[in-house]
Order: sequence, then C-alpha cells, then structure tokens
Amino acid sequence: MIDQAALPTTFRRVRYTTPEGVAAAIKTMVVRGAPAIGVAAAMGVALAAVNSRARTKGEFIKNLNSAAELLRSTRPTAVNLFWGIDRVLSTAQEGSSVDEARKRVVAEVKRMEDEDVEVNRSLGSVGADLLEDGDTVLTQCNAGALATVGYGTALGVVRAAKERGKCISVLVPETRPALQGSRLTAFELSRDGIDCRIIPDTAVGFVMAQKKVDKVIVGADRITRDGFVFNKIGTYQVAVLAHRHGVPFYSAAPRSTFDLTHLHSEVTVEERPFEEVVRIRGRRIAPKGVPVSNPAFDVTPPELVGAIITDRGLVLRPIAKNIPHVIS
Amino acid sequence: MIDQAALPTTFRRVRYTTPEGVAAAIKTMVVRGAPAIGVAAAMGVALAAVNSRARTKGEFIKNLNSAAELLRSTRPTAVNLFWGIDRVLSTAQEGSSVDEARKRVVAEVKRMEDEDVEVNRSLGSVGADLLEDGDTVLTQCNAGALATVGYGTALGVVRAAKERGKCISVLVPETRPALQGSRLTAFELSRDGIDCRIIPDTAVGFVMAQKKVDKVIVGADRITRDGFVFNKIGTYQVAVLAHRHGVPFYSAAPRSTFDLTHLHSEVTVEERPFEEVVRIRGRRIAPKGVPVSNPAFDVTPPELVGAIITDRGLVLRPIAKNIPHVIS
Repeated sequence: MIDQAALPTTFRRVRYTTPEGVAAAIKTMVVRGAPAIGVAAAMGVALAAVNSRARTKGEFIKNLNSAAELLRSTRPTAVNLFWGIDRVLSTAQEGSSVDEARKRVVAEVKRMEDEDVEVNRSLGSVGADLLEDGDTVLTQCNAGALATVGYGTALGVVRAAKERGKCISVLVPETRPALQGSRLTAFELSRDGIDCRIIPDTAVGFVMAQKKVDKVIVGADRITRDGFVFNKIGTYQVAVLAHRHGVPFYSAAPRSTFDLTHLHSEVTVEERPFEEVVRIRGRRIAPKGVPVSNPAFDVTPPELVGAIITDRGLVLRPIAKNIPHVIS
Repeated sequence: MIDQAALPTTFRRVRYTTPEGVAAAIKTMVVRGAPAIGVAAAMGVALAAVNSRARTKGEFIKNLNSAAELLRSTRPTAVNLFWGIDRVLSTAQEGSSVDEARKRVVAEVKRMEDEDVEVNRSLGSVGADLLEDGDTVLTQCNAGALATVGYGTALGVVRAAKERGKCISVLVPETRPALQGSRLTAFELSRDGIDCRIIPDTAVGFVMAQKKVDKVIVGADRITRDGFVFNKIGTYQVAVLAHRHGVPFYSAAPRSTFDLTHLHSEVTVEERPFEEVVRIRGRRIAPKGVPVSNPAFDVTPPELVGAIITDRGLVLRPIAKNIPHVIS
C-alpha cells in the first residue's frame, strides 16, 4: 500500500506480510479512509489465512478469528473495518478443507479489491448528476483514491463529473490535525490535473460567506440507520456553515459504510493521540503539559444532509426513512 | 517586545531602534494582536521622533509622517494600528519646537502603554459579570496579554473573573495557520495557572454539540459602525456554531478597536503569504504548486453577537444602534 503518513513529501509503497503489520498500519494511519481500511483489514485476515499452519479447519478459523480480533481493535468508528473483516470470516467458513478455505479467502479479498473500484465508479456516476459545469466543490479530509482502493467516493464524484466534460474546482480545507486535505486530497487532485486550492480549516466560513462554494461533498466513515453521518472531525461544522449559506451538502459512501443496526448514539467516536495536535512533522507547536482533545470524527445530523450519494443511487430526504429503500 | 513568532518553544525579547524594525516586526507577526500593534506602531513613530535630526518642526513632522506611512502599510485590517499612529502624529503637532514635540511624543507613547493595561482591566471587570463560576469559555486566536501591552481583552475577562474567585476553564482552538491559540493562548494561560485545553480548529462544532462550551469570548481587530466584528480567521464559524447551539458569543475590545467611520463592506481583509499554510515551523505539509488562500480575518455579522465587552461598558443588542451610546 501507499504510505499515506509520508505523503506528500515522500511517496513510498510499503508491504505487509502479517495481520500485525496491517493492524499497526491502520492504527498509525499509514492506511486510512473508511473503504481503504475495510479492504486492508480484510487483507490482514487473508494474511492470517495464508500464513496459517493449521491442520484442521477449526484451528484455521481460530487463527483467522485471532487476527480479526486484533484488526477490530485498531479503530472503532469506521464501520467498513468491521464489514471487511466479517465478510472474509464468513467466506472462510464456506471452505470444507483448510486449503479450500484459504483459496476462497484469497479469492474473496481480491474480489473486494476489484469491487471497491467498481462501486466507486457507480457512486461517482450517480453523484456526477448533482454537479454543474463550473461548480466549486468544498470537501473535507480525503475521500479520494487514497481513501479507497482507487477512484474515491467524494472525489470519485468530482472525477466522474470531469469525465463527463464538466469543469469542477475543489476547495480543500487542510483538515487538522492529520492534514489529510492538504497532504492527500491536494496531492491526488493536482496529480490528476483537477483544479484545487488549499484553505486553512478556519477559512471555511469565510469562503462560504464570500459565495465561493457551490456544493459540499464529503465521504463518510459510518452512516447509522437513523441517518447520522460520522465523518472526519470538522465535517459537522462544514455542514452547519453550508446550511446557513444555502449550499447543498452531500455525503458520498458505498453500501459498506452503512450501519443498519446501530443508532448514532451507540457509536464510539475515536479519541486519537494528543501528539497529533502538539507536533507537526516532528516539530512542537504547543507548550508542554497543556491538555489536548483530539476526537477523530464528528456527527452530522440528517437535517443538514441534502442527500447521500451511494453506488445504488441517491438517498434523498428524509434520509433515515429512505436509507433502507436504497441500501437493501 | 516578546518575539511572538518564536513562542512557545523559545521565549525571547527583541529590541527595535528604528521605525523600519518595528514595521518589519508587525508585518511578520513578531508582534501581533490589535491593541499590541496599535501601541507598537505608535512607538515606531516615536522612534522616528527620537532618531530625527530635523532642525525645524516642518522637517520633524515630515520624518514622522514618513515613518507613519511605512507603518500604516504593514497590515490593513486592525484599526488600532491607524489609531495608534494618528494619536502620536497629532501629539507631535502640539509641540512648538522640535525638542518639545519630541518630548511630548515620547510621553504620549508611554501614556498609551500604561493606558492599554488600565483599559483592559476595566474591560475585564465589565466582562467578568457575564461569566459564572464553573464556566467553560471557548476563545479563538489570542486576545490575551501577548496581544496587548498586558492583561488582555478576551483573556482579560477570564483573568478578571478568576480574580473574583470564579473557576473558569478555557477551550483553545489551535487557530491555523499561525497557531496563535496553541502557541500563544495556551502558553499564557498555563503560565498563569488558568485551566485550558487545546483542540484542533476542526473540533469546535464537536465540542459545542457535546455541550462542553458555556460562553464564547473573542477579541476584535476592527468593529465597524454597522456592528460587524472583524477578527482572526475562524471567528465567524465559531459564531455560527455558537448561535446554532445557543451559546452566547461575546467580542471584547477597547474603544481603539471601533471604527466609527466605515461600514464593514469598506474594510480590506488582509491576505497573508501562502507559506504560512504550506509550511509549519519550516516543514512542508502540502504538495508544491497547489494554490492556497490565506485570509487573515473574517467578519461576524451583528446578529450573531450577544454583546461587545468594552472598557466603557457592554454594547448590547441591537449592536449597531448601541455602539455610539457606549463609545463616545
């Protein structure tokens, strides 16, 4: 995988051969983005399958469950992680021998890899209808090719609109503390020749007040059955500002991001290490000893969401009522 | 003055002996904060007075005007800069000889220095009534002792409340790009033993939604006669979020921050160098060649302002109508 912690100054690929390696990569955000960590976690379980010396299927499943447990403990909020792990585990059950189960697991994660790009292309095609030629789209964090196997969700919509000949500009808030906007979104858009501009997170309200934003499109880490969108910290305030300024706010997410079992109040928001805030690229920017809060996600209520763009079509308002009709 | 660009990792005092030195310090934010740059600019003009070799008063005033012109060109938004310069220039006119004018100028800037602390103490006392024991106050940027000659405006209110025995906690957004929150506000509050906690700018909406904020108090760089508050970028979105969550929003500012001649639409918002966004403490955090917007201030409309805390008392709603009754 691409080492996303090193971008944009260093572009390097890293290779993992154990579930432990993949778990560490997810935890430290070498790989991040809900769809990407879903497939990465599935591959982590597949590595346990490949490495397993089990002689019985019982032992084999035990090996996989132990890898799954480790991978599940890395990050609590993005639901794709659990979806990816569960899908591989259920495939493993299907094989009648260890060898057959192993083959099925490997085939399944390769299928998941291919599917992710297809799903993003479908989702992009659905969302592209919402964009007009000349639009400026504000996004948050990185819901692009880097956050997925390829193409992207929110940025997949931008790519699809561009493929249809529409000219789209993207405003990119830095997205502190991990700077996925300036480090990753600006990196992948500029490599693709898509017009983009970085702003500090503090300038979102200013650019909206200046009428410089036509649409907001963000990704999602989990969408609960009551229609609440968990996404990168800062998304909620972008949604509030969009609402005030009459700017449509869309979340783009594949089916694997929907959590049809939980309500938003039942989801844990991950608190990340304070070091992400007090140091940037190794340089201290805050006095020692001052406490820090570093929540990784926030929650946007359905009344602020114009529509959810999925690979199966748009979830229109009222969001909660319409989710089951689209995601079935 | 304290070199605010070097904080919090290095605490050092720097000395300037020419208006050119002071102008460069204002431009590069070695000194920043509207009241502090007002007094610093006045002292810049006073240095021209001290250094002047003029034999006639006409020449002397010419020297001062030339320093004033340079200092006025440093930063366009904070009105205290122009207020400080104009006040010294008008004092210089009063002396009948070069020597007398020089003495008056030096005495005047020393008076301005003392006055600033007194004004902040009065303002703090007015604002302290608004805070209750146990309140958590969210601020933005640094409107503290560092932004003034001493004591602070927004943080002066917190200090005054604390002096009255109220226990106040402060939530401090980092305030990208120049990080005045984490670098300066957290620094001065923790040195004073006032409980504070740093959050990324992206987490303001999250902490409000979690009901962790009781009041917002910010400073101001200019308050126009139509009641609009120009302040550090990010303030407007804090005000919008406070409004949504029913959290009172106050701006604390001395009389010298009020601009009774202009409407908000007539004020220039400074665009700062893009380097402030793409590098942090010398380390690159964004890909090369991607455009950046870096507006230094934003504008909060009066309908989002609960009251303005001044040294003369509170400006209550409707703000625009009440400004002249308090600031006379």
